[in-house]
Amino acid sequence: MQRYKLIIEYNGAPFAGWQRQRDAISVQSVLEDTISKLYKQDITLFGAGRTDSGVHALGQVAHFDFDGALDTHKFVKSINYFLRPHPIVILSCDSIHQSFHARFSAISRSYIYKILNRPQPSVIYQGFAWHLQKHLDVQAMHDAAQALVGKHDFSSFRAVHCQSASPVKHINSIAVRRNQDFVEIHLNAPSFLHNQVRIITGCLKMVGEDKWTKEQIEYLLDVKDRTKAAATAPSAGLFFIKAEY
Amino acid sequence: MQRYKLIIEYNGAPFAGWQRQRDAISVQSVLEDTISKLYKQDITLFGAGRTDSGVHALGQVAHFDFDGALDTHKFVKSINYFLRPHPIVILSCDSIHQSFHARFSAISRSYIYKILNRPQPSVIYQGFAWHLQKHLDVQAMHDAAQALVGKHDFSSFRAVHCQSASPVKHINSIAVRRNQDFVEIHLNAPSFLHNQVRIITGCLKMVGEDKWTKEQIEYLLDVKDRTKAAATAPSAGLFFIKAEY
Repeated sequence: MQRYKLIIEYNGAPFAGWQRQRDAISVQSVLEDTISKLYKQDITLFGAGRTDSGVHALGQVAHFDFDGALDTHKFVKSINYFLRPHPIVILSCDSIHQSFHARFSAISRSYIYKILNRPQPSVIYQGFAWHLQKHLDVQAMHDAAQALVGKHDFSSFRAVHCQSASPVKHINSIAVRRNQDFVEIHLNAPSFLHNQVRIITGCLKMVGEDKWTKEQIEYLLDVKDRTKAAATAPSAGLFFIKAEY
Repeated sequence: MQRYKLIIEYNGAPFAGWQRQRDAISVQSVLEDTISKLYKQDITLFGAGRTDSGVHALGQVAHFDFDGALDTHKFVKSINYFLRPHPIVILSCDSIHQSFHARFSAISRSYIYKILNRPQPSVIYQGFAWHLQKHLDVQAMHDAAQALVGKHDFSSFRAVHCQSASPVKHINSIAVRRNQDFVEIHLNAPSFLHNQVRIITGCLKMVGEDKWTKEQIEYLLDVKDRTKAAATAPSAGLFFIKAEY
């Protein structure tokens, strides 16, 4: 068996997330089915980030084992052709050593959450940002976010149905930046809890709107209570950027 | 009569350009019809840039005269509501002095042409860039573009059916930059000839692919022959950014 590493871009809107599910179309199922059918061999994909329903990816990483040698250039062209009209595109395919595991070998993941911060919506970026009309204080958001960097119990910042054994996670960095009409939240961590980025975004929005302070973010880390944190930000603004190995 | 200045964003894909046309839907006609119908008064829009079919705008400027005082905040909300599902959004509306003319008062216009420069297409940015697979030499493109800056006879760089009285135009600046997988061409000039930006882009693409040199661009200025220049780049990559007054 030869192992292959894929880099994948997708628009998450029509999918029930990365992971294969019963009775719902997922990125993993579309890719697995397309590859298995075209190459007449059942393959299983392992992804670096199990993105939620509606979440986009610019650089999802996945691997699969294949019995035989693939012409990777031809593979990418063929699969991309048959993936249409699904909004999924394989950016690259490379053979890789069996010790590589897209999920378990990843030392960190990078996400960006995009907020369109202006009075009017966009007809160009619709579906790819959270539209917030009120002007956000980006400096206050960035400062408050620094309270989350490092190792913490993120119980307040994970979905009620999160299945992770422990709520303790380590965030390497969070940077909040304004880029014209957009506010971008850049996050990097070894791994994330379910909905962690979107709940953090919801809380930083409260800071940006001057409703909460950095102390409130620190209090949320202490109180370990999801019901005290802000609402989960919408999936459309979230992008899985890359996994680092 | 009170004059009002609008800033407008649109996805150019479904439109036959900015300008009202017989038997085709244009941005101007959709906006004029929506405003005239809702405010029960025939208005005429004057736009800063007469963008072509399929060309996008992030900051088109237009003005119109209205008999009466508008609640501009309410106007923007109402018109944007009734513009749906057309991909047009008014970003702002402000009353302005009668001496202001969106087209004739503009001292310059800024466009950006976006090229997605990587082997695979995009499912996120599709419709908003020209996809070129071969890696472009951005520095060579930028250097060659400098030959076009200043006052020149742009006969080689205008559509055969361009109706401008003179082919002589002044370009203030052209900058070619790489931004991750994108190559962006930023142009600023008092005004442009028909298809000028897209023909310039087509020629700079030849330079980026190492098929032409800067001397070829200089030759095109001298020879004044549209048939010697490259093919017009597709409309989907072109954005009208703003007009300066």
